[in-house]
Amino acid sequence: MSAKPVVIIAGIGVGGGTGGATARAFSKEGYSIALIARGSDSLKALEDELRASGADAASFLIPPFEAVRTRFPSPEYIVRAALYNAVDRVWKPFFEVTDEDMAGALQTQIEGAWYFSREAISEFKKNDIEPISGKRGILMFTGATASLRGNTSTSIFSAGKHAQRGLSQSLAKEFGKDNIHVAHVIIDGAILTPFLLSSRNDPTLQTNEDIRLSPQGIASTLLFLTKQHRSTWTWELDLRPAHEKW
Amino acid sequence: MSAKPVVIIAGIGVGGGTGGATARAFSKEGYSIALIARGSDSLKALEDELRASGADAASFLIPPFEAVRTRFPSPEYIVRAALYNAVDRVWKPFFEVTDEDMAGALQTQIEGAWYFSREAISEFKKNDIEPISGKRGILMFTGATASLRGNTSTSIFSAGKHAQRGLSQSLAKEFGKDNIHVAHVIIDGAILTPFLLSSRNDPTLQTNEDIRLSPQGIASTLLFLTKQHRSTWTWELDLRPAHEKW
Amino acid sequence: MSAKPVVIIAGIGVGGGTGGATARAFSKEGYSIALIARGSDSLKALEDELRASGADAASFLIPPFEAVRTRFPSPEYIVRAALYNAVDRVWKPFFEVTDEDMAGALQTQIEGAWYFSREAISEFKKNDIEPISGKRGILMFTGATASLRGNTSTSIFSAGKHAQRGLSQSLAKEFGKDNIHVAHVIIDGAILTPFLLSSRNDPTLQTNEDIRLSPQGIASTLLFLTKQHRSTWTWELDLRPAHEKW
Amino acid sequence: MSAKPVVIIAGIGVGGGTGGATARAFSKEGYSIALIARGSDSLKALEDELRASGADAASFLIPPFEAVRTRFPSPEYIVRAALYNAVDRVWKPFFEVTDEDMAGALQTQIEGAWYFSREAISEFKKNDIEPISGKRGILMFTGATASLRGNTSTSIFSAGKHAQRGLSQSLAKEFGKDNIHVAHVIIDGAILTPFLLSSRNDPTLQTNEDIRLSPQGIASTLLFLTKQHRSTWTWELDLRPAHEKW
Repeated sequence: MSAKPVVIIAGIGVGGGTGGATARAFSKEGYSIALIARGSDSLKALEDELRASGADAASFLIPPFEAVRTRFPSPEYIVRAALYNAVDRVWKPFFEVTDEDMAGALQTQIEGAWYFSREAISEFKKNDIEPISGKRGILMFTGATASLRGNTSTSIFSAGKHAQRGLSQSLAKEFGKDNIHVAHVIIDGAILTPFLLSSRNDPTLQTNEDIRLSPQGIASTLLFLTKQHRSTWTWELDLRPAHEKW
Repeated sequence: MSAKPVVIIAGIGVGGGTGGATARAFSKEGYSIALIARGSDSLKALEDELRASGADAASFLIPPFEAVRTRFPSPEYIVRAALYNAVDRVWKPFFEVTDEDMAGALQTQIEGAWYFSREAISEFKKNDIEPISGKRGILMFTGATASLRGNTSTSIFSAGKHAQRGLSQSLAKEFGKDNIHVAHVIIDGAILTPFLLSSRNDPTLQTNEDIRLSPQGIASTLLFLTKQHRSTWTWELDLRPAHEKW
Repeated sequence: MSAKPVVIIAGIGVGGGTGGATARAFSKEGYSIALIARGSDSLKALEDELRASGADAASFLIPPFEAVRTRFPSPEYIVRAALYNAVDRVWKPFFEVTDEDMAGALQTQIEGAWYFSREAISEFKKNDIEPISGKRGILMFTGATASLRGNTSTSIFSAGKHAQRGLSQSLAKEFGKDNIHVAHVIIDGAILTPFLLSSRNDPTLQTNEDIRLSPQGIASTLLFLTKQHRSTWTWELDLRPAHEKW
Repeated sequence: MSAKPVVIIAGIGVGGGTGGATARAFSKEGYSIALIARGSDSLKALEDELRASGADAASFLIPPFEAVRTRFPSPEYIVRAALYNAVDRVWKPFFEVTDEDMAGALQTQIEGAWYFSREAISEFKKNDIEPISGKRGILMFTGATASLRGNTSTSIFSAGKHAQRGLSQSLAKEFGKDNIHVAHVIIDGAILTPFLLSSRNDPTLQTNEDIRLSPQGIASTLLFLTKQHRSTWTWELDLRPAHEKW
C-alpha cells in the first residue's frame, strides 16, 4: 500500500479564502490535509467541514510540524505539498505603523515563512521522487502585487512580501537540483472571501467572476503547479481576474 | 451543433518542438489545428501526422488568416486559441550580426508578432464568451530568458524578445476587459527537440527529464492557461527543468 | 594638443527637450556637438543657437556617421559620447495603430537604435581609455516607463521601448570588458518641452519644478553617467519629478 | 548663519568601505558626520580620522537618534541626508543558517532599516525644502544583486535585501510628495575593502580599478543623488565595475 500524500497549509483565515479552497481542492485529489493557523475557531470549523465531506483533515496551532507528523505518521503518510499563505496585512501610512505592527509583520511574513520553509523542505528531503512530476515535494507561497512593487501605504507589507519572494527564489534555485519544487504565486486583485463581501458593499463581487479572484481558481492553479512535469516547473506566475486593471 | 474550436499555431520549426507538441495536445482536446510557418516541408509532415491520428489539421504558409478562415469557416469553426511561437534565434556577437539578421529578427520577432496578434484578436472579438474560462479567446507567446535579460551574445534576439513581452503585456491589459486572455510564457532552458539532440552529443538529454524542457510539458502548460477560470488568469509564468541552474 | 571630445546626439525634436539640453550641457563641458535628426529646421536652429554661444556644433540628417567624421575628423576630434534619444511616440488603442505607425516605430525605436549603436561603438573601439572614467566612450539611451511595463495604449511603443532596453543591456554586458559604457535612463513623467506647454494648458508646469522633468536635469544626469568612475558604472537608473505618482 | 547639514551613516564596518568613503566625501562637501554602528572600535577610529582632517564628526552606538540630535542640535544643525548601509551578510546553504543568523539578519536588514527610516524621515519632515534639489532630506539604501534576485546561498540575505528594496520603494512613493527623496543603490560586484583584500589573495584587486567597486565611486554616486534637481530624482540605480560579468 502506498503512502497517502499530505498537504500542509499555513494561513487559513476564516476558512473562506485561499487556504480553505486549497484544502478542499487537495482533499478531492486524495490528499490528507494539515491545517495550521494562529487562531483556533475557524481552523476547527474548516477541519470539521472537511471531515464531514470525508476528508482526512486535522488542524494545528503554531508551532506545528512535530504535531503534524504525529497525526500523519510515516510511512503511512508522506508530506508532498506545503502552502505558506499566512499574511499580516498592514496597509497604513508609514507613520501609523506601530512597532507591534512591524514586529507582527516580520514574524508572519518572514520569520514564519522561514521556519515553515525549513520544516517543509526537511520533510520533502525524506521523500522519494514522484516519477511524473519529478518532485519530492512542492513548497508554494502566495504573494501579492506588493511582492513586486512597493506603494504609498504598503511599507512594511511590501517589505515582507518582497522578502518572501527573494526567499522563495533562493530556495527554488537551491533545491531544484534535489527535485524539490518551490513556487511563488502573485495574486493581483481582490479575492472573493467573506471578509471582502462584508467590507465592500458590492453585490456584483459575488456574481461577476471577471472582477475578483475566486479561491477555487487559485486552488486549481496550486494543484496544477503540484502536478507540473519535472521538465517544466514554474517558479512564478501571476493571477488576476479577467477585467482587473493593472 | 456547437462550433468546433480552432487553435492557430505560428512557428512549427521541424515539428518536433513546442509548436508540434501544442498541436498534438490541443488536437486531443478536440481543437482543429491551423499550422502556420514559413517553410512548407516540415509543416506538411506535421499536418500529415496529425491527420493520420484523426486530427482536423491544416497547414498554411505566411500570410495566413484569410486562408485559415476559408479552411475553417464560421459558424462551423471558431478560433479560440493562438500561439505565436515563431522565433529567429540570432545568437552572435553584436558585430557579427548582419543587416539581414537584424531585419529578419525584427520581422519574425516583432512585426510578425504584431500582425499575428492583430489577426488573432480580431477573430476573438467575434466570439462569444466561453462560460467557465471567461474567454473569447487566448493569445499566447513563448518567450525566453532573453525576454527578461539581455546578455553578451543576444543583442538583437533580446531586443525582439523584450519587444514581444512589452507587446503581450500591453495587449493583456488592453483586452482583458473584453475577455480576451493574453499570456506570455518564459521558457528558461533547452527544449528537447530533434535539433537539440543533433547539435549536442549528449544522450542524457533524451533520458534525463530533469535537465531539459519537454515540448509536451510546455504544451500542457499552454492548455492549462487556455482553461484558466475567468477569475484567475495568468499573464506570465516561467518554465524550466527541475535541475536547471538559473 | 589633445583631441577634442565629440558627443553625437540623435533625436532633437524641436530643440527644447532632452536632446537640446544635452547638447547645451555637453557643450559647456567642452564637447563638440554632432546633432542628428530626421527634420532639418529645428536641427539647424539648435545648431545656430549653439554656435552663437561659442559651441563647436554641427547638424546632420540621417544617415549620419560618415558625415559626422568628415566634419569632426580624427585625430583632432574623438567621439566620446552618444545619446540615442529618437522616439516615435505612438500612443493609441491597438486597433488604431496603422501599418505605417508600426513600421515607423520599428524603424525609429529598434532599427535606428541598432544602427546608431553599431556606429557609436565602432567609433569608441578606436579610442584610448580615458583614465578616470575608464571609458573609450559611453552610449546612452533614453527610455520610459513603457520600457518596463506595457499598458493599454502602448502596444507598439512599449514593444519598441522594451526592445531598446534589452538591446542596451546586451550591449552593456558585451562591451563593458572593452571599457565601453552603455547606460539606459528610464524617464518616468512628463518632460517640460515646448510641446508639453502647448498641449497641456497648465501654467504650473512651467513654474512648479516638482511636477515635471526638466531637460536640464536629465542632461545633468547624462553628464554624470559620462563621468562615472570606471569602478562604478551604472547601466540603468530612473528619473522622475519629486511629486510624481508612480 | 545657515544651519550646517548633517549626514547620518549607519553601517561603517571597519571604516574602509562604503560607509567610511561616504563620510569622507560628505565631509568634504561641508556636512557634519554622524556615524552609527554596532561595534565601537572601528567607529571611533573613523571618527578620529575624520576629526583629524578637520571634519565635524561624531560616532554613536545603536540606538542613535536622540544622541545624534543632542550632539548636532537644532537650529545650528540640520539632518539632510541619511544612509542605511548596515548589512548582515549571511551567505550559506539554507540548512546551515542558524536561528541566530536568521534573527540577526531580520534585525539588521529589516527592523534596523525600518527604525532608521522612521527616524530619518521624522528629522527630514522638520526641514525646509532646499531650493535646487527640492529636498527636505534624502534617505539612501545600499542594496545588492540579491535585492533583485535570490540565489542558491542567499536565502535569508536575499529576503532581507528584497525587503529593503520594497520598503525603499514604498517610502519613495509615499514621501516624494513631501519632498523627501528616497533612493536605492544596487551594488553589483565586490567592493574594495580591507576585508576583500585580506580574504582574496589577489593583488590586482588593488590595482585594477575595472574589476571591483571603489568605495569612493559609490560615495560619489550618493553625493550625486543628494544633489539631484527636484525635477529629476532617481529612486534606483545599479553600480558595477567596467569589467564585471553580469
